[in-house]
Amino acid sequence: MSNELIAARAQLDAWHAAIQDALDAVMLQATGNERLQAAMQHAILNGGKRMRPQLTLATAYALGQDPMRAMQPALSVELVHGYSLVHDDLPAMDDDALRRGQPTVHIAFDEATAILAGDALQTLAFEVLSASPHDAETRIAMVALLARASGIAGMCGGQMLDLEATGHVRSQSLTALETLHALKTGALIRAAVLMGALSAQASTEDTAQLAVFAERLGLAFQIRDDILDIEADSGTLGKTAGKDVEQGKTTFPALIGMEASKARLGQLQEEMHALLRAFGDAAEPLRCLLTRVVERTH
Amino acid sequence: MSNELIAARAQLDAWHAAIQDALDAVMLQATGNERLQAAMQHAILNGGKRMRPQLTLATAYALGQDPMRAMQPALSVELVHGYSLVHDDLPAMDDDALRRGQPTVHIAFDEATAILAGDALQTLAFEVLSASPHDAETRIAMVALLARASGIAGMCGGQMLDLEATGHVRSQSLTALETLHALKTGALIRAAVLMGALSAQASTEDTAQLAVFAERLGLAFQIRDDILDIEADSGTLGKTAGKDVEQGKTTFPALIGMEASKARLGQLQEEMHALLRAFGDAAEPLRCLLTRVVERTH
Repeated sequence: MSNELIAARAQLDAWHAAIQDALDAVMLQATGNERLQAAMQHAILNGGKRMRPQLTLATAYALGQDPMRAMQPALSVELVHGYSLVHDDLPAMDDDALRRGQPTVHIAFDEATAILAGDALQTLAFEVLSASPHDAETRIAMVALLARASGIAGMCGGQMLDLEATGHVRSQSLTALETLHALKTGALIRAAVLMGALSAQASTEDTAQLAVFAERLGLAFQIRDDILDIEADSGTLGKTAGKDVEQGKTTFPALIGMEASKARLGQLQEEMHALLRAFGDAAEPLRCLLTRVVERTH
Repeated sequence: MSNELIAARAQLDAWHAAIQDALDAVMLQATGNERLQAAMQHAILNGGKRMRPQLTLATAYALGQDPMRAMQPALSVELVHGYSLVHDDLPAMDDDALRRGQPTVHIAFDEATAILAGDALQTLAFEVLSASPHDAETRIAMVALLARASGIAGMCGGQMLDLEATGHVRSQSLTALETLHALKTGALIRAAVLMGALSAQASTEDTAQLAVFAERLGLAFQIRDDILDIEADSGTLGKTAGKDVEQGKTTFPALIGMEASKARLGQLQEEMHALLRAFGDAAEPLRCLLTRVVERTH
């Protein structure tokens, strides 16, 4: 392992700890109804990998900014991610009882509480953004970015496509599947990266480059997810394995085969490394994150 | 009927039409998944009274601003209101099949679509705010206001209190009931008024005065709602009457009696008129709105 890689990993570990602390603080400050607060904490403080907020900090770092300046936008993306998981797990949606090895919010509490906890977490994301230590113009640009990435033209629209597509395995084209995931998971991963770019006042060129990197990363994340759903077991995964096939969801391996899916993943990895070359050593934490996405086992 | 009242009513009618047009336009622009867009339109373009956005415009007008300047924040409050109704109507929450005489979103579509439509409407509220024609500082203040009013410290927190209190009629104190409604419906009504104040760059004194007015109005709205649930029939109401009693919800008439509830309403009305006196003739539309709240039959 190279010295650069060791240093990048240590940096990501330190950021992970800082993100955990900041999330703890945000969830403690989100007071009101005790049961609702407990449900929101259950959803967020559950040992998540924090990939999205780490992407925000790593992007700000790659652009030469103190990554701690980008903490609030990083948290806002994680809160939207967290709310979406709570609602996705509901009986009317994916009907999942297990998430990261823990009971999902509607199991640990009840359905009504889970609906409200998701709602209030989305709201909290925008509240956190509004209090970010950036000038007002930048904060409003961040609000617009987060809203577009998570609404009907982004995450929610992708989730709806996913619901419509469920049960129609192999009837979907590869393009349709890529569009689905570009919205469902890709849009928020892209927003995580672009929050870092906004925070660091990146040039138009750097922003465009990072946007393409983020789109590739989102796609790689989903292909890896589909592969893991088949190859991993529930214990390692921390959620129910084989769920996609069982629910009749179209996946990359189902559509193009396992070998072609793995080849596509390798190709995306190369493209991402090429896109990051211009950012030099400062992009080492971003490279480390992309390796984790492509090689993760859970 | 005085000339001032006739003029104020005509003004509110014109604003109502302008709000409808602006909502139509916003919902047409919110493209992505067709089914999701249709569900969002079903939720929003359903002949609502538009009390909250009218409050925003009337407040801006009372402060001497062209009320059309306050349209975007007015719409953002209506979108949050609309999303909350979609989620409140879900089987796991109030389980309502009828809303304004129409099937609710989960009946007209399905539960998963209703959850996503509510989520995407909340997101849209913040997107609309981010594009408001105010300076960035004002827009960020509006984002913070809307988030605080609708999250755990506001509407969502109040809805959770309501769920916890259901089935415990008469065990609640009057103070607890007022707190519940100050959050559940009051916080968003207050935000509607304060959006107008922010839009018009109101002084600290005017803002404080308008905040108290809005808190009284929210309480009056809820007392009237409770009275109507008992005295009106489902046809006039456009939703299922007698639902509160059936679901074992605490109401003002249940707690302090019908006569005392009506007396309290009259007292609030007087207090609100006193609070508006300082704003002179420009507050005539606000007075007209408060009369509608206190005297409405549906």
